[in-house]
Amino acid sequence: MPYAVIMAGGAGTRLWPAARRDNPKQLQRLIYEEPIVAVTVRRLQPTFPLDHCYIVTAARYADPIRSVLPELPPENVISEPFGRNTAAAIALAAFRIAAREPEEVFAVFPADHVVLHPDKLQHAVNFSLPLARAHTVVDIGVPPTHPETGYGYIELGKPIEDRDGLTAYSVRRFVEKPDLATAQGYLQTGHYMWNSGMFVWQAATFLNALREHLPETFRALTDAEAIGTEDALQSAYAAIPDISVDYAIMERVSDVVAVPAEFGWRDVGDWNALYELMPHDEAGNAYEGTHVTLDASGSLLLAPNKLIAAIGVEDLVVVDTPDVLLVMRRDRAQDVKKILDKLKERGDDAVL
Amino acid sequence: MPYAVIMAGGAGTRLWPAARRDNPKQLQRLIYEEPIVAVTVRRLQPTFPLDHCYIVTAARYADPIRSVLPELPPENVISEPFGRNTAAAIALAAFRIAAREPEEVFAVFPADHVVLHPDKLQHAVNFSLPLARAHTVVDIGVPPTHPETGYGYIELGKPIEDRDGLTAYSVRRFVEKPDLATAQGYLQTGHYMWNSGMFVWQAATFLNALREHLPETFRALTDAEAIGTEDALQSAYAAIPDISVDYAIMERVSDVVAVPAEFGWRDVGDWNALYELMPHDEAGNAYEGTHVTLDASGSLLLAPNKLIAAIGVEDLVVVDTPDVLLVMRRDRAQDVKKILDKLKERGDDAVL
Repeated sequence: MPYAVIMAGGAGTRLWPAARRDNPKQLQRLIYEEPIVAVTVRRLQPTFPLDHCYIVTAARYADPIRSVLPELPPENVISEPFGRNTAAAIALAAFRIAAREPEEVFAVFPADHVVLHPDKLQHAVNFSLPLARAHTVVDIGVPPTHPETGYGYIELGKPIEDRDGLTAYSVRRFVEKPDLATAQGYLQTGHYMWNSGMFVWQAATFLNALREHLPETFRALTDAEAIGTEDALQSAYAAIPDISVDYAIMERVSDVVAVPAEFGWRDVGDWNALYELMPHDEAGNAYEGTHVTLDASGSLLLAPNKLIAAIGVEDLVVVDTPDVLLVMRRDRAQDVKKILDKLKERGDDAVL
Repeated sequence: MPYAVIMAGGAGTRLWPAARRDNPKQLQRLIYEEPIVAVTVRRLQPTFPLDHCYIVTAARYADPIRSVLPELPPENVISEPFGRNTAAAIALAAFRIAAREPEEVFAVFPADHVVLHPDKLQHAVNFSLPLARAHTVVDIGVPPTHPETGYGYIELGKPIEDRDGLTAYSVRRFVEKPDLATAQGYLQTGHYMWNSGMFVWQAATFLNALREHLPETFRALTDAEAIGTEDALQSAYAAIPDISVDYAIMERVSDVVAVPAEFGWRDVGDWNALYELMPHDEAGNAYEGTHVTLDASGSLLLAPNKLIAAIGVEDLVVVDTPDVLLVMRRDRAQDVKKILDKLKERGDDAVL
């Protein structure tokens, strides 16, 4: 049976003040009934049995994640002493998997993305798993719907397999986040897919690639895993580079395959993205909590524990929490980070 | 020594959700450090000794008012069984005053107005008190600063006394709330003053006018005061007309005098009025509570118990309370009443 590696290290600061340093995005419910990390794990069933699911996260999120996923073996939540980007996080999980079944494949998933059509994702994953045994790595790509400048792209080469309504392509190259004109060009060609951060490797293949392209990380983590203590891992992390798996490995190996698939993939990166995913009333407002409105439109109004009354407001985001109230124009959703920077500067740590 | 009658019957619903049915505007601090009804009483000292100050209010506000003014004799807070407009409220106080000193004068003040220059108000009151013995009633008028359509106006006649920098005029007529064009005309002539709702009568003169112009009220309240029970007062109130003192009496008596005076009088009728009275930062924002902003301007941000973060918002009002959060465009401040109507309609009584 294949393994899943769920990347749950980020805090999701643009969803502040719901997401906090100690209550990160992956523990938020977002559009779901339960925390999104739990949704992510459950939708991988039954392809990836629970004891084959690993979650890699920051030390301070490990216990909260275990408590929202009590059916997951606690040792499957892997604590990183601190963040060292995706190459280290995936490597850590790959060592654990290889120690059990080095010939087995593992699929990597972000913990905090919405998938509107989980059945279609499952179909794409099932299509990709056997391919990962025959090729170096399979990247699940998402056909772009708009010229997004916040994602990396994959340029498709020629088709190499066609089955069950899906086609695998060779990958010509990975490209970093493009500018708008470039992204518009990509969108028109139809040959560029969004890099969703979901990909499948055979464990041994990944570790070989790691040894070749990121030898310090390979060595440091091999040693730390052999010793097996938290201290050893902490020392190893202090010594390894902060680099993404895309940049360090994916872009440097040959025989990379992409499987474009449409499954309603949404990166709920900020409040505007969440607004767009939520159901709206006829005036385009999305709510959590009781509400009363007069000429309010296009607004996200989240006040789960009180009545929210809105008059005459347009395209606004309001997020009420017990100690922080955020009010902003919806098109400024990216700027939540700047507010956090301001709070850090003035030492307002308690609300971060 | 003269008496003061403070009118504290209204709820101030346009300041919802801070003001509530059970926590009315006169108990709000507004721009002050203490509830505005207490500020109103204290600024009348020493001209009106505390045991000469009467507060007329709704039964459910009587005890809360007593508790914010512990130094006031409790019996000086007069409970109305329910609201019957200003004629009944003032009559009730006038009967109590006449029972003590019928020849003495009393001055009527609203409980919930801001006075930026209390010394100037005191000067105008001191100027008016002796005039009230020589004339039927003295109305303290406020020179209009803009063509307000929400107030009544007094048209001045000829000057009748000039002393200490103030002039008393005969009153030609009272006019009800005008339309904008009429109000603009009034502003240009310089002969029209705002009717501030502050006026001075001799107790006996008022009761004589009441007997003549509003005989049912005179009779019903005389009887109720003679019996002296709450039940008697309740029966009396059920029988008397709901009418303002301006319409029922002021506009019908002769020898009315007006004293125009500028003392920074502000009717804090709604959130926009409060916004204009509060201190602003350089971007025109007014705050209560800690805050962090990015490109926010012209906004009133009241969240006394939490951090408020505002990004890109303009001319907004945000009022956070434990059970209700109001968010509205500042120029829609009048429409808070419509929200309350909606809540009443759907039976959401708990938050009114």
